[in-house]
Amino acid sequence: MRNITLVLLFLASTVWAQKSDELQIQEIYNAALTKGKAHDWLNYLSNQIGGRLSGSVQAEQAVLYTKAQLDSLGLDKVWLQPVMVPKWVRGTPEFAYIESKPGYTSNIPICALGGSVATPPGGLKANVIEVQGIQDLEKIGRDKIRGKIVFYNRPMDATLLNTFQAYGGCVDQRHGGALEAVKFGAVGVIVRSMNLRLDDYPHTGSMSYGELPVSDRIPAAAISTNAAELLSTTLKLDPNIMFYFKQNCKQLEDVPSFNVIGEITGRTNPDEIMVVGGHLDSWDLGDGSHDDGAGCVQSMEVLRLLKLSGYKPNRTLRVVLFMNEENGLRGGRKYAEEARVKNEGHVFALESDAGGFTPRGFSFDCSEADFEKILQWKPLFEPYLIHQFIKGGSGADIGPLKKEGMVLSGLRPDSQRYFDHHHAQNDTFEHVNKRELELGAAAMTSLVYLIDKYGIGTSNGIKGK
Amino acid sequence: MRNITLVLLFLASTVWAQKSDELQIQEIYNAALTKGKAHDWLNYLSNQIGGRLSGSVQAEQAVLYTKAQLDSLGLDKVWLQPVMVPKWVRGTPEFAYIESKPGYTSNIPICALGGSVATPPGGLKANVIEVQGIQDLEKIGRDKIRGKIVFYNRPMDATLLNTFQAYGGCVDQRHGGALEAVKFGAVGVIVRSMNLRLDDYPHTGSMSYGELPVSDRIPAAAISTNAAELLSTTLKLDPNIMFYFKQNCKQLEDVPSFNVIGEITGRTNPDEIMVVGGHLDSWDLGDGSHDDGAGCVQSMEVLRLLKLSGYKPNRTLRVVLFMNEENGLRGGRKYAEEARVKNEGHVFALESDAGGFTPRGFSFDCSEADFEKILQWKPLFEPYLIHQFIKGGSGADIGPLKKEGMVLSGLRPDSQRYFDHHHAQNDTFEHVNKRELELGAAAMTSLVYLIDKYGIGTSNGIKGK
Repeated sequence: MRNITLVLLFLASTVWAQKSDELQIQEIYNAALTKGKAHDWLNYLSNQIGGRLSGSVQAEQAVLYTKAQLDSLGLDKVWLQPVMVPKWVRGTPEFAYIESKPGYTSNIPICALGGSVATPPGGLKANVIEVQGIQDLEKIGRDKIRGKIVFYNRPMDATLLNTFQAYGGCVDQRHGGALEAVKFGAVGVIVRSMNLRLDDYPHTGSMSYGELPVSDRIPAAAISTNAAELLSTTLKLDPNIMFYFKQNCKQLEDVPSFNVIGEITGRTNPDEIMVVGGHLDSWDLGDGSHDDGAGCVQSMEVLRLLKLSGYKPNRTLRVVLFMNEENGLRGGRKYAEEARVKNEGHVFALESDAGGFTPRGFSFDCSEADFEKILQWKPLFEPYLIHQFIKGGSGADIGPLKKEGMVLSGLRPDSQRYFDHHHAQNDTFEHVNKRELELGAAAMTSLVYLIDKYGIGTSNGIKGK
Repeated sequence: MRNITLVLLFLASTVWAQKSDELQIQEIYNAALTKGKAHDWLNYLSNQIGGRLSGSVQAEQAVLYTKAQLDSLGLDKVWLQPVMVPKWVRGTPEFAYIESKPGYTSNIPICALGGSVATPPGGLKANVIEVQGIQDLEKIGRDKIRGKIVFYNRPMDATLLNTFQAYGGCVDQRHGGALEAVKFGAVGVIVRSMNLRLDDYPHTGSMSYGELPVSDRIPAAAISTNAAELLSTTLKLDPNIMFYFKQNCKQLEDVPSFNVIGEITGRTNPDEIMVVGGHLDSWDLGDGSHDDGAGCVQSMEVLRLLKLSGYKPNRTLRVVLFMNEENGLRGGRKYAEEARVKNEGHVFALESDAGGFTPRGFSFDCSEADFEKILQWKPLFEPYLIHQFIKGGSGADIGPLKKEGMVLSGLRPDSQRYFDHHHAQNDTFEHVNKRELELGAAAMTSLVYLIDKYGIGTSNGIKGK
C-alpha cells in the first residue's frame, strides 16, 4: 500500500512537473510574442547602425549599443571582453564588365570577397576560364589558366532541402578559389555568388590566401547569379571575351574590439555556465539583419524573457555577442581561450546564426546520452511547431568552447530564404519578420530553461538544493 | 517453413514498396526544385494579369491563360466549367481622415470591404464608437451607437501559433460587423485590418448584409492596423472626434465566368476522382500571389510533375482552378453540384489556399481509419521537412464536395507571414519565394501520388489489376 502511494505521489509529481514546464514555456512564448524587444533592438542595430564589419565604426557602435541595452536589463554583470580583430576595408564600390569585343561592354554586379587584395589601380582585364570547382584546375592545366581570370561557377545544389548543405557544397570555391588558382598562374578570380536564386546581388564572404606571400596574391570577387549565367553563356559563344574588374579593398592592421557579455549568475550552481549567443559583426553590403543581427537580439531576449518570467536560473546564464565571426572568428576563439585560462565550467552553449526565420528546431553536438535526454523535451516544443531535434553542428562562435561532456546547440530556422540574403546588399531589416524572429527567441529561451532546470552534460545535479 | 517464406516475401515486398515510394518522391522533389514551372506561371498571373476579382477582366484573362497552360501540358482533357459570379467593383480609390477638430485632419489608409455599399457621394462624416467586437454592441446600446460609425478594433491574437486561428478569432467583425451595427442605428462601419503586423496597408475581404434590404445597408471599410491604433488613441483623448470616409464601390449584376479544369484520366479506376486545386480569383488590391495564385500554380504543377515523372495515375486526377472563392464560393459550389448531378465518384480533394510559404504539413478532414492510413506515410515526408499531419479543415472551395468516405485535405504552409499580405496591396509576387512555392507543389504531388497508389476513403482497391 505504501509503495502504491509512493508510485502515485511520483506520478503526480511527474505530471505536475510536466504541467509546470508546459505553462512556463507557454508564458515564455506569450511574452515573446506580445512583449518582445528583439525586433526593436534589431531595428536599431540595422537601421541606426547598419552593416558591422569587424574593425568598423559601426561594429564599435554596435558594441556600445548592445552593452547599454544589456545594462538596462538588470543583469548581474555586463562587461566587454577585449579582442583584437582584423580590419579589412572595401574601399570605393567595385566595378566590372564583360567585354565581348573591344568597345562592347556589359556592366556586371560585383563585390570584392572579404580579405581579397585590390586589383591594380586601373583595374584588371583578362580572358576568363570557367570552371565548376577547384578540382577542375588540375584537369585544365596551367597552360590554359595562366594569365586568365578563373571563374568558379558551380551553383548551389537546389535539390538539397537544407540550404546550408548546398552552401557547404560550393563555398570552397569562394574561400580557397584564389589560393588554388594562383598555383596555375591565374591573375584573378571571380566566383558565382552563393545564392540559390537568380538575381542581381553579388554576395561577399570570407576568403583566404593561406600562407601565400602578399606579392603573389590575386584579387578575388563575387558576381551575382544572373551575371554568372550571363558570363557563362557569353563564354560559350566566344571563349575569348575579356572580363574587367576593379576593386581597391585593403587589409589593414588589426584593431581592438570586444565581445559583449551579460550574465545572470546561477542561484545554486554558479560555476556551471550556459552560453547563448550570436555574432555582432556582419558583412558590410547590407545591414546584417539576418546574419547575424537576428541571432544577437534573440540571444539578448533569452535573458530578458527569463527575467520577465520570474525564473531564476540555477546555473549561470551568459549572453555572448561575439565579434568577428565573419572574417576571423577572433571573438569566439578569445571567449573560449579566456574560459580555459579561468577554468570556467561551461556546460551548454547555444548559437543562433542561421537567420531570423521561423524556427524549425535545434541541432545538437553532444553525447548520445545527452541527446536522448534532450529528445524527451521534444513534445514540449511541438505545440510551437518546433519539430527538428537533430544531431549536428552548432555555431561557429561557440565551436571553440567544445569539450567532452558539454552540449553545443544551434537554432535551426527555416533555411529556404536564407541564402537569398546572406552576405548581400539585401540582408536588411525589412526581410526579417517580427513574429518569426520572436518565435526563435522563445524557442531558445524554452530550451535554455529546460537545460537549466534539469541539467545536461557533465552537469546533471543541482547543488545546494 | 512455407509460412516463414511467405512472411519473408511479404516483408521484402513491403521494403521494396517503401523504397520505391522514397525514390518516386525524391524524383518529384528534384523535378519541382530544378525543372519547376510554378514560379513562371505565377509570375505571369501576378505581373502580366494582376489582381483577379470575380467578374473582372483580369479574372477572365486568368481563365484563358491557365486554360492555355493546361492545354500545353498534354493532359487527357481540359475544359471550362461555366459559373455565374457576383461582380463587385471598388470604383475610385477610397479616402478617409480623422478630424480631431474642425480643419485638423489626419489621412487614414482605408479600403472598402468586398460587398459593401458606397458612402453618399460626398462621403460620410460621423462620430466614432470603438468596440472590441459584435458582442459589445448590445452592452453599449442603441442610444450611444445611433448615428455613429462603429469601429471594430479587436486585434488578432498574437499568441496563437496558427495565425489562421487568430484570423478566425476576429474575422466576424469584418464579415458581420455592418449587419449587426445597423441594428443599433450605426451609419457606417470601419474595421481594424486582419493583420498581425502594425503597418499601413488596409486589408479588404468579404462582408455580408445578410437579408438586409438594400436601402438599410451602411458602408463598411477596413483601415490599416497603424491607423486603427491611431484612431483608438485619438478616441481616448477625445471621444467626440469625427471620422470621414468616402467610397463609391458597387455591387453589379452577376456575370458569367468559369472554373478551369484539367484531367489525367485514371488508368485502372477512371471513375474515382481526385481533385487538387486552388482559387483563381483574388482580391483586387494586390496581385493575389499568395491568395491564391500560389495554390493555383502549385495545383497545376501537381499534374505536370506527375506526368514528368512518368507516373500514370490509377485514378482520375483533376486540377480545378475555382472561380470566386473570395466573395461567393460560386465556383466551389458549382463544381460540387455538377459532380453530384453527374454522380461522379470523388474520393479525394486537396486544396492549397494558405499562401506559397514553406510547407509544414497537411490537414485532413476524414475518418479515423483513413487518417491512420495516411499517418503511415508521414515518415516519407520527414526528409522534406513536412512534419504536420493533423486532423482539421481542408479548403473553402473543396468543402462543398464533402461526403461520407471521402478524404479532404489542405496544404499547411508556414503561416507566420501570411496575414502580413492577405487581401492587401502587398500580396504581390516578390513576396513569394520560388523554392518555398516549389516545395509546396512537391509535397502536394507526393501526397497525391501516395493516395493514388494505395487508395483512400471508399476507394481502397485498384480495379483491373
